[in-house]
Amino acid sequence: MIYADYNGSAPLCQDVQEYLSQRIVKGPFANPNAIHFMGQKVLMGMENARAVCAKSLGTLPKHLYFNSGSTEGISHVFYSEVLTHFKEKKILITSGIEHSAVVNSANHYAKYFNLEHRVLPCLSNGTVDFELLKQWLAKDGEQVLLVSIMAANNETGVIQPYKEIAQLCRKHTIPFLCDTTQLIGKDLFNFDESGVDYAVLSGHKIGAMTGTGILMVREPSRMIPMIIGGGQERNLRGGTQHYLGYETLAVALTEFDKKKLRLEELKENRLQFEKALQDKFPKLIILGGEADRLATTSFISYPGVHGQAVQMELESDDIFVTTSSACSDNSPTTSKVLKAMGVKDDVGRGAIRISLGLCSKGDEYSVILKSLTSAFNKLLKIDIHV
Amino acid sequence: MIYADYNGSAPLCQDVQEYLSQRIVKGPFANPNAIHFMGQKVLMGMENARAVCAKSLGTLPKHLYFNSGSTEGISHVFYSEVLTHFKEKKILITSGIEHSAVVNSANHYAKYFNLEHRVLPCLSNGTVDFELLKQWLAKDGEQVLLVSIMAANNETGVIQPYKEIAQLCRKHTIPFLCDTTQLIGKDLFNFDESGVDYAVLSGHKIGAMTGTGILMVREPSRMIPMIIGGGQERNLRGGTQHYLGYETLAVALTEFDKKKLRLEELKENRLQFEKALQDKFPKLIILGGEADRLATTSFISYPGVHGQAVQMELESDDIFVTTSSACSDNSPTTSKVLKAMGVKDDVGRGAIRISLGLCSKGDEYSVILKSLTSAFNKLLKIDIHV
Repeated sequence: MIYADYNGSAPLCQDVQEYLSQRIVKGPFANPNAIHFMGQKVLMGMENARAVCAKSLGTLPKHLYFNSGSTEGISHVFYSEVLTHFKEKKILITSGIEHSAVVNSANHYAKYFNLEHRVLPCLSNGTVDFELLKQWLAKDGEQVLLVSIMAANNETGVIQPYKEIAQLCRKHTIPFLCDTTQLIGKDLFNFDESGVDYAVLSGHKIGAMTGTGILMVREPSRMIPMIIGGGQERNLRGGTQHYLGYETLAVALTEFDKKKLRLEELKENRLQFEKALQDKFPKLIILGGEADRLATTSFISYPGVHGQAVQMELESDDIFVTTSSACSDNSPTTSKVLKAMGVKDDVGRGAIRISLGLCSKGDEYSVILKSLTSAFNKLLKIDIHV
Repeated sequence: MIYADYNGSAPLCQDVQEYLSQRIVKGPFANPNAIHFMGQKVLMGMENARAVCAKSLGTLPKHLYFNSGSTEGISHVFYSEVLTHFKEKKILITSGIEHSAVVNSANHYAKYFNLEHRVLPCLSNGTVDFELLKQWLAKDGEQVLLVSIMAANNETGVIQPYKEIAQLCRKHTIPFLCDTTQLIGKDLFNFDESGVDYAVLSGHKIGAMTGTGILMVREPSRMIPMIIGGGQERNLRGGTQHYLGYETLAVALTEFDKKKLRLEELKENRLQFEKALQDKFPKLIILGGEADRLATTSFISYPGVHGQAVQMELESDDIFVTTSSACSDNSPTTSKVLKAMGVKDDVGRGAIRISLGLCSKGDEYSVILKSLTSAFNKLLKIDIHV
């Protein structure tokens, strides 16, 4: 079995499986907010995990807030910035290639607080139009409540100019939320050096426990809580902490740090795989292929061959890929990311995403290549050209 | 070691430990929203868990929304009701014995949306003043946006007249959020029969995985999402689901259903324990002792003997209890619950909460009785009477 949907969700990585197997049997279990010894022991373990995560993410523990994942982090930043600034500022800026958590949050708050939701277009190479953003901020910067643009796209893997956007936003003193969900665990990331004001992480994307995440916050005093409880996470995220899960974030990030030297090798493997595929099928398109991309993501299309048909062929060889992101997987149409890139429907409907992770074995590409080759050979015999 | 802080957080119950030990090693792991076979397999497991939970909670799966826990559920209900009704309705009603998740949510929304937060007093027996609530609703019912009152108190274990409150609120067509966190898993609960509009559950209180919870919703069409993502949980709670954790909710609730016949026995054990303690120390007070209480909670005080001193004595015998709720554990003062009950400081500062669960072995009380006896005997020699 080859699992090639790491951008959708990663399996628990080996170290996390081993850690949890022991942890679940041995304990300790207690409320980390209780003052008895058991509670304090759990608290110390969790705070140790926070320190390990902070070091790996290039910041201090005081900038890290544990939560249930990136979607919560994104919703929380929108909530906090909108509730505290909607009276003075009226524009939310996102881009045309954002994850639905960002798109839907922006639409939601635009509706309930009467704001303008402005969507930054994307260039045909898969990166957002940074020059246009510059113009927008030069003209309307004072009215901008929040800019939310991702670090790496979930479908194409294209890395965005997020550090440049951070600098630009800082110049205009506009808070910048960077959806780093797909970047972290698949590329190097340093929160302090990035210059972004808010960054997010989902544990299930990096091999940690499901239902875990981190919100990184440059200026915690700027925030208000959305999940409001008994003062946990320094008053910014209530509720008894998912400490068993948060510990696995530290384990998974530590595993990433051990393996990150493999990134170059993985990227090289991916490039060879894509080249071999294009040698066999010259019409095959690598979506976002001209831009800098995550080491482990290939988004390919053979114009006229339906992506879902290819997916099913691969599945019969026990290879699991997707046609786009999990959240829009059910509609056999061109994804909004590809539409934003100006990709036509015959290409867009053919898209197949092959996404591996740092914990992938490394020999997956040769098996996928073989299976994809026979899938295309078979499907090309059926005349489905539009 | 005796862990007697189940009201703070329960250890993973035996069945959950066994389930997870297998589950973590075997998989499957995938995004339940992906259409490939692995994703669908994970989805089916999660939906099966939802059906099991729904049956145990006395409702249909369509009323259940998985989330990260009760604090999220409570915050979500406040968020949803306030954002959609703050223009017509102006009063939030909670009680003086609510958990800080409810108190702080009400204060937060009162502040940001200019609402009145009205706090229902509590009678000396530990139940909220139902007659006064009747009067309030008869007079100002049309202005009430939300009533939020708990089912069982986390400190005293006193069961509140939540079914009567549900009936009353329904009569006035006011939405009723019932914080059922402490009741579920320690007493019988049936959502459909209860009549409440919103109920909440935290997995870590019932022996399931941390970071898991359920929000029960009578009329889902009434709600808007707070964590806004890609349409998960029927558009009411975004973010890739914590499926590994949600499965354990089904395991823990199934274990509860198997063991719930033990409730009467546990209650009897607790009553005997309390009687034996009062026989030895006639001045000892059972807080909330005159009301109907959870089978497994004792909240006791010896006037003039500091609770934290008793807690430390028990801890030296490897028995872990708390002085009040985890969230207010750090302040050696009378808790707000006890203040609301009119308890004086010499009694309030002496409070010790001993809380067990259905998974407790059953012989804990005799060991605790012995340890408490020597603790009080020792501490009473020190003249600290106020």
